[in-house]
Amino acid sequence: MSFSVTILGSGSAVPTSRRNPSGQLIECSNRYFLIDCGEGTQMQLRKFGVKFQKIDQIFISHLHGDHYFGLVGLLSTMHLMGRERKISIYGPVGLKSIIIGQLDRGGSKLSFQIHVEEIKPNTSTVLFEDEKCSVRCFPLSHSIPTSGFVIEEKSKEPKLMYEKAKKDGILIEYYHRLKKGEDIMHDGRLILAEEYTETKSKPKQYAYCSDSGYQELTIENVEGVDVLYHEATFVEVLKDRAIATYHSTALDAANIAKKSGAGKLLMGHLSARYETGDLHLKEAKTVFSNCQVVKDGERYVID
Amino acid sequence: MSFSVTILGSGSAVPTSRRNPSGQLIECSNRYFLIDCGEGTQMQLRKFGVKFQKIDQIFISHLHGDHYFGLVGLLSTMHLMGRERKISIYGPVGLKSIIIGQLDRGGSKLSFQIHVEEIKPNTSTVLFEDEKCSVRCFPLSHSIPTSGFVIEEKSKEPKLMYEKAKKDGILIEYYHRLKKGEDIMHDGRLILAEEYTETKSKPKQYAYCSDSGYQELTIENVEGVDVLYHEATFVEVLKDRAIATYHSTALDAANIAKKSGAGKLLMGHLSARYETGDLHLKEAKTVFSNCQVVKDGERYVID
Repeated sequence: MSFSVTILGSGSAVPTSRRNPSGQLIECSNRYFLIDCGEGTQMQLRKFGVKFQKIDQIFISHLHGDHYFGLVGLLSTMHLMGRERKISIYGPVGLKSIIIGQLDRGGSKLSFQIHVEEIKPNTSTVLFEDEKCSVRCFPLSHSIPTSGFVIEEKSKEPKLMYEKAKKDGILIEYYHRLKKGEDIMHDGRLILAEEYTETKSKPKQYAYCSDSGYQELTIENVEGVDVLYHEATFVEVLKDRAIATYHSTALDAANIAKKSGAGKLLMGHLSARYETGDLHLKEAKTVFSNCQVVKDGERYVID
Repeated sequence: MSFSVTILGSGSAVPTSRRNPSGQLIECSNRYFLIDCGEGTQMQLRKFGVKFQKIDQIFISHLHGDHYFGLVGLLSTMHLMGRERKISIYGPVGLKSIIIGQLDRGGSKLSFQIHVEEIKPNTSTVLFEDEKCSVRCFPLSHSIPTSGFVIEEKSKEPKLMYEKAKKDGILIEYYHRLKKGEDIMHDGRLILAEEYTETKSKPKQYAYCSDSGYQELTIENVEGVDVLYHEATFVEVLKDRAIATYHSTALDAANIAKKSGAGKLLMGHLSARYETGDLHLKEAKTVFSNCQVVKDGERYVID
């Protein structure tokens, strides 16, 4: 199964020629999720060769413009390109009226249905779930209600140990039930599923945390994720500014990664004042070595 | 005096890698006007090296997203970059509530004042005027209320013919009044202003017409302009589609240019289906030879 994130925008509120406002495409077992949709996201999707009609779920973290000003434009383009399939959008209270209002003002009627599910402030819940993956949200610490998201690729079914089952004379009709983890009583003999199946692999998880100041609640919510994307708007010399604006420094992001036991840390949402992410990387590595500052257009495999 | 237009976006509703949604920067005697502000306009301004804090007036033609979805993002960036000077925005009824609504939702309070003047449907009026230039609007023919704009660089003051005035012994205290076009009676002699001043040059005009189907009303309103920008979404084989969607073909644009006696025609707002503007140019030239299909980033001098 495939699980990856493509960075569409890794800048903060003021876009630069190097970094677009926030946007990420998550591909998880052939589900395509868009997280945040800053201005220009549709151009970035096109630039990086993403077939954006595949996106069926969009998650908006909060209502600062650099996280959603590209949303209605993207929906309009999907419409003009003949989309018929429903799209689901999850975001803060108020998002629905913005979308409906802008479409109405333009006299636009989309060719497809949109389902907007608003997330109340301070909510932790599963927003999307099917047989392949799930997306849950939890509250971040920002100046307006903001959600972080964790995407989980569900465990594969346990694998049956065919040779052993055959050798021990287990009836074929029991194979399916054993794979589902069911123990079976046959002719007075207990056949244990765990003896005939290989252990499940741990479900892979990716977490998205932007925008947010440092908070312990994030650590609980992203515990053990394989890859953590955490905003790092500033470096330590601007710690006061980070606190005042409910943003993080690179060191904050690294501490969250370390304390949560994340496998890898990706940092983004860099302030326009930084030409490169070198300082961020240097500071973060003092605490958590497996980290990287992302760039627009890069794709990271979650493994 | 300087008078030019820089193309920020020349595409239509679906942006492409070649053409951003609509946006133009007009520089007229050191006034900087932004006309339309499609998604990504602030990135285009940056890309093309425009100092966008110089913009004090923004004109929005209509409320289709490809003409204004970049507006609140641009205002937010102006704020984050420390703008203090007031900005005036002219656009259709409904624009004010969109701007205020989006800023409110994000909990944003701008560091500068915005004055939004809404244009009622079917209005022809002067929106802005100072000693150097004026901007007036008139109704275009589109599916929702839409305005065209004409920017006029005011005539320079007549130039005094100093040598002649000196030779004829005209008193220096009369020079200023003569330059203002005032005739003067002195010692029983009538001194005619027109005899001591050089003829005014014709004021230069630039017209912006997007989006619109072909209409005679446009011809009246752009009569004799030096440069006419007119949308040419389609070419003639899609004339039916142009009519149905209230857009123009290249031939429509050329006919407007010809009938209005425009000096030059610039065509834009090309549908994403066209890789180049070659077909548009070929068709338009059969009617009006001095024409061009614009490209993003190009600057045209109005002369």
